Amino acid sequence: MTARRCLAVVLAAGEGTRMRSALPKVMHPVGGRPMLDAVIASARAAGADRVAVVVGAGADLVRRHLARTAPDASIHEQTERLGTAHAVLAARAAFAEPADEVVVLYGDTPLVRPETIAAVRGRLAAGVDVAVLGFEAADPTGYGRLVLDGERLVRIVEERDADAETRRIRLSNSGIMGFRGDLLPGLLDAVGNANAKGEYYLTDAIEIAVGRGLATGVVVGPEDEFLGVNDRVQLAVAEAVFQGRARIAAMRAGATLQAPETVFFSHDTRLGRDVVVEPNVVFGPGVTVADGVVVRAFSHLEGATVAAGATLGPYARLRPEASIGEGAHIGNFVEIKKADIAAGAKINHLSYIGDAVVGAGTNVGAGTITCNYDGVFKHLTRIGAGVFVGSNTTLVAPVAIGDGGYTAAGSVVTADVPADAVAFGRARQENKPGRAREIREALAAKKARKG
Amino acid sequence: MTARRCLAVVLAAGEGTRMRSALPKVMHPVGGRPMLDAVIASARAAGADRVAVVVGAGADLVRRHLARTAPDASIHEQTERLGTAHAVLAARAAFAEPADEVVVLYGDTPLVRPETIAAVRGRLAAGVDVAVLGFEAADPTGYGRLVLDGERLVRIVEERDADAETRRIRLSNSGIMGFRGDLLPGLLDAVGNANAKGEYYLTDAIEIAVGRGLATGVVVGPEDEFLGVNDRVQLAVAEAVFQGRARIAAMRAGATLQAPETVFFSHDTRLGRDVVVEPNVVFGPGVTVADGVVVRAFSHLEGATVAAGATLGPYARLRPEASIGEGAHIGNFVEIKKADIAAGAKINHLSYIGDAVVGAGTNVGAGTITCNYDGVFKHLTRIGAGVFVGSNTTLVAPVAIGDGGYTAAGSVVTADVPADAVAFGRARQENKPGRAREIREALAAKKARKG
Amino acid sequence: MTARRCLAVVLAAGEGTRMRSALPKVMHPVGGRPMLDAVIASARAAGADRVAVVVGAGADLVRRHLARTAPDASIHEQTERLGTAHAVLAARAAFAEPADEVVVLYGDTPLVRPETIAAVRGRLAAGVDVAVLGFEAADPTGYGRLVLDGERLVRIVEERDADAETRRIRLSNSGIMGFRGDLLPGLLDAVGNANAKGEYYLTDAIEIAVGRGLATGVVVGPEDEFLGVNDRVQLAVAEAVFQGRARIAAMRAGATLQAPETVFFSHDTRLGRDVVVEPNVVFGPGVTVADGVVVRAFSHLEGATVAAGATLGPYARLRPEASIGEGAHIGNFVEIKKADIAAGAKINHLSYIGDAVVGAGTNVGAGTITCNYDGVFKHLTRIGAGVFVGSNTTLVAPVAIGDGGYTAAGSVVTADVPADAVAFGRARQENKPGRAREIREALAAKKARKG
Repeated sequence: MTARRCLAVVLAAGEGTRMRSALPKVMHPVGGRPMLDAVIASARAAGADRVAVVVGAGADLVRRHLARTAPDASIHEQTERLGTAHAVLAARAAFAEPADEVVVLYGDTPLVRPETIAAVRGRLAAGVDVAVLGFEAADPTGYGRLVLDGERLVRIVEERDADAETRRIRLSNSGIMGFRGDLLPGLLDAVGNANAKGEYYLTDAIEIAVGRGLATGVVVGPEDEFLGVNDRVQLAVAEAVFQGRARIAAMRAGATLQAPETVFFSHDTRLGRDVVVEPNVVFGPGVTVADGVVVRAFSHLEGATVAAGATLGPYARLRPEASIGEGAHIGNFVEIKKADIAAGAKINHLSYIGDAVVGAGTNVGAGTITCNYDGVFKHLTRIGAGVFVGSNTTLVAPVAIGDGGYTAAGSVVTADVPADAVAFGRARQENKPGRAREIREALAAKKARKG
Repeated sequence: MTARRCLAVVLAAGEGTRMRSALPKVMHPVGGRPMLDAVIASARAAGADRVAVVVGAGADLVRRHLARTAPDASIHEQTERLGTAHAVLAARAAFAEPADEVVVLYGDTPLVRPETIAAVRGRLAAGVDVAVLGFEAADPTGYGRLVLDGERLVRIVEERDADAETRRIRLSNSGIMGFRGDLLPGLLDAVGNANAKGEYYLTDAIEIAVGRGLATGVVVGPEDEFLGVNDRVQLAVAEAVFQGRARIAAMRAGATLQAPETVFFSHDTRLGRDVVVEPNVVFGPGVTVADGVVVRAFSHLEGATVAAGATLGPYARLRPEASIGEGAHIGNFVEIKKADIAAGAKINHLSYIGDAVVGAGTNVGAGTITCNYDGVFKHLTRIGAGVFVGSNTTLVAPVAIGDGGYTAAGSVVTADVPADAVAFGRARQENKPGRAREIREALAAKKARKG
Repeated sequence: MTARRCLAVVLAAGEGTRMRSALPKVMHPVGGRPMLDAVIASARAAGADRVAVVVGAGADLVRRHLARTAPDASIHEQTERLGTAHAVLAARAAFAEPADEVVVLYGDTPLVRPETIAAVRGRLAAGVDVAVLGFEAADPTGYGRLVLDGERLVRIVEERDADAETRRIRLSNSGIMGFRGDLLPGLLDAVGNANAKGEYYLTDAIEIAVGRGLATGVVVGPEDEFLGVNDRVQLAVAEAVFQGRARIAAMRAGATLQAPETVFFSHDTRLGRDVVVEPNVVFGPGVTVADGVVVRAFSHLEGATVAAGATLGPYARLRPEASIGEGAHIGNFVEIKKADIAAGAKINHLSYIGDAVVGAGTNVGAGTITCNYDGVFKHLTRIGAGVFVGSNTTLVAPVAIGDGGYTAAGSVVTADVPADAVAFGRARQENKPGRAREIREALAAKKARKG
């Protein structure tokens, strides 16, 4: 049996007025990526081999974004907003290439899981012509209700059009629907706009399908997957659902989250087994943490890779392209950016290490700063293995310290340090006896005059 | 029609024994200001033109505080605590000046909204002589019940005096009441103390008013506004209600709070549109953030102003009189105090900038410290536009760097730097070949001896 | 009356497969100590004079741990896991010494309170031979049900063996039981393994006791004490219950927690009266904070002692053996380790103070670093009273600054500074006129070539 061809149409044209934002609604992030990306990712994970995105509000920005994150998706612009059926028809060009199934998704409904979309596909594969994804609403008020006759979906009735009996139905419409590919264009063309708003509603396709004697059905999914985001409160709720899922998954996989409600994940965070995460940790996008790592409180990681047994924080700040070796320690108020820290190295206090390579077992003292930027270019600092960088060392890149080298505390290092050498770059101390008392007295006298 | 004169009497004399605190109860803060201030602010926002505060426990401290935050309020001391009617009578001097309405509020009930107080005023304006603010309690146990006869309030029955039928009443007494101004003194004088505790209860004024044939009524408000704070758990609950309101309001106004439950506001926090606030951010009092600012995780702002498009944090610490210009970047582990950072400036890592002016487009390197304090006086650091402050620069104020000036990394700058000049203030590096190996060997030998 | 001798048998042999961890289950921490330690501590606080721990999975690690935290506990290894009765019998050697009472506890049930265990003891002291600790389950599904005949416990029926009527019983088995000491061995020996798994269940001891005409009874405790930890989600729930209790207790004792849900305690955290804790604070083990201390947001304390009236943070990091004097200030991005900071001292910004003594009233400038480590040994920095440490001072230990001494900002201090002297250890500044413009032009030219 050959794989069934599936086209996902993602509606992403809405203005999102209630977001009160200059950013198009579908570009607002959940789990560290735009909602639209999350929906496309779910569609692909459910086996959709083609994705068509219908854009409208902020179309240029969305188009540029998709060129980067989903370059093989086709983009279709809906220039007027005349309802969901009209929006799907905006992707008509995508229907030219035959598809066995077309699934309609929404760019502002980012929590739908791949397996739920796959269940819709499964129903189509089993011979249903139109399958609607529904859910048993805890409170169905405001949702369209799915009216069944046995297993068959008869129609979708909006709240405002529902009689008392229909309002008692809890089975509600998520808006997500799957269609037999060859039937969809004809159904859409039959949808009219004889309603109060003069719009073309995708839900009307159900009655049309029934009228044509097609097989219709419902797939029921969990309500939390169908949360639509129309304002920033709903955006925060969607984020919270995402975070809840990610936290449970991390714990089930063998990570300890001491206070899961204070740990924030991105969609692609990967934690190993026996990772311990203390309270108040933020994982931005692109983080991989290997087994046995301890991420202490108040740490913030983005785009970083951490090898087994390392310890981070509290207050560790890993920025993109930070790579932390096995058993290394990154301590308090330490920022690492684009740097390769080898196994067993220690950078424990108040340091900035950027554009650098730090060798195995090297100890970087408190207050060490790599001066990687000259105002135009970034330069590399290479620190060998077994090096002892004295506290408050200023490393003016490009510069290198050979294996086993030392820098004296408080030094400014502008030239390479050979292996096993010590670099001194600081002034000799001189004490001025009694001078502190004189300064104090002078300040006190000045204060007395001013007072 | 002339405006009706309204006097708010705020009872703030309670000891607050259950707070277990040396601080008077009404001085404990919610939303970054004492509860008492919040109540006074709501009274004023509801249109009260005079405020009388009845103080008792910690009277001197409260008096000194109000001299600063509410200098036009009259202060009245209740020397004995003999009940709420007795407390209101302590403000008798305030009744000398005629008022159309007197509203009695409580310094430990900080969540009451202006519009709710205004509703009591509206009822008085409509001709009711005594209006009580009530609420439909989710669980009325312990509250006084409001017994109505039609729209008329007949009496308030305390839980302990209530029969079974009265206990079924859910409409409960918030304690907040409004009176026709000319009637209040006479009502208060009629309240007796023939009860178990020998105290004078304001609630008794209702039956007296009814007995005199006065018009009484009830205004119903939301329960969460009437939370009284008697211990620190209730204080935390009141704070949580405040924060919940502030978070929703910020989101409705167009700010994204990625994890609203981890963002803490003060009563006067102002966020613009398309502000993005990452998890774990604290806004202390006096913060204004303009449109499009990104406040990254773990940032803490107090008394600061942030212009459009700036980026803060993670771990940015803005203290009072920090002013951050358009598009400026304040980065990791950076503290800014009383400093004017111009547009496009960047202070990205591990710096302390206090008592300073930083020009447009200037880059301040990692580890830069302004030495603004000589032990007695604070001095100013002026950094021009387009300056490049090298990493780990120590700026000994008073000192200035002209436009386009540079400082070499690791320099101590004690004298002004002319425009376009470079300041060097660091020792020349010298390498001692083989010296690191010698040190290591000596330390190893010493360790062997000690071990 | 002599005290009744009580032996606590703590079962700690379970593998904890669902934890997906290399660490034995009972070693996973709640409230900053292993669950096993928490159970032992509750047993001791309830008056158990002997503790026997039955180990199995990860026995060596548990044994080594207990040698440190509970050296007087006897350790018994259960080599096969054949049920709870079998596990208790593994401690048979502990029964050789007579006990009036034996209480069986579980190393993965860390939330049981001393007073609840004491209630079981009380029932035994009152003449019951076997007392089972039960709870009224909100949802009893899955729990063993306690079947009573009057006050007498008749049997414990597992869910799978329960008929419909028995399933309606909400009184459930916590697993914790107390036995008359002389009867326990005989009861255990009578337990058989004629069941599906071929295991020996302690619950079977009830029917045996009833059959022998012994007095059995039930003590009812609160459900939240009996949460058993089998996976990391349950571990997080147990931690949350612990934190909830600790937060309430701190508030009831007179500390303000502005956002209690963001403050994390350890089992031994001690907070004084009128301590104010801002949002997002972590107390690791071993912290004592005296009256009137303000712990600002994002602070992290471990093993530290803080005297009255001190102010910490935001972003203060106190590590073990940090001792902060009365009224001292530890500010932003400051790390203190093994250091005695005297009254009134101020260390306000971006400093690392380790292995140090700082005198009264001393001011330590921003960016100060103690260089306490030479790669092998730690050395002491002694700073006297009334000292002014200039910003960005590097203190190379061992080194001392006498009372009233100063260090010039940016100095490297390698030798002792006499009292009232000023130490200078920095280069003289030199300005190179026009050099910044030349550098800029050179960089721009280079950029143009590269671009």
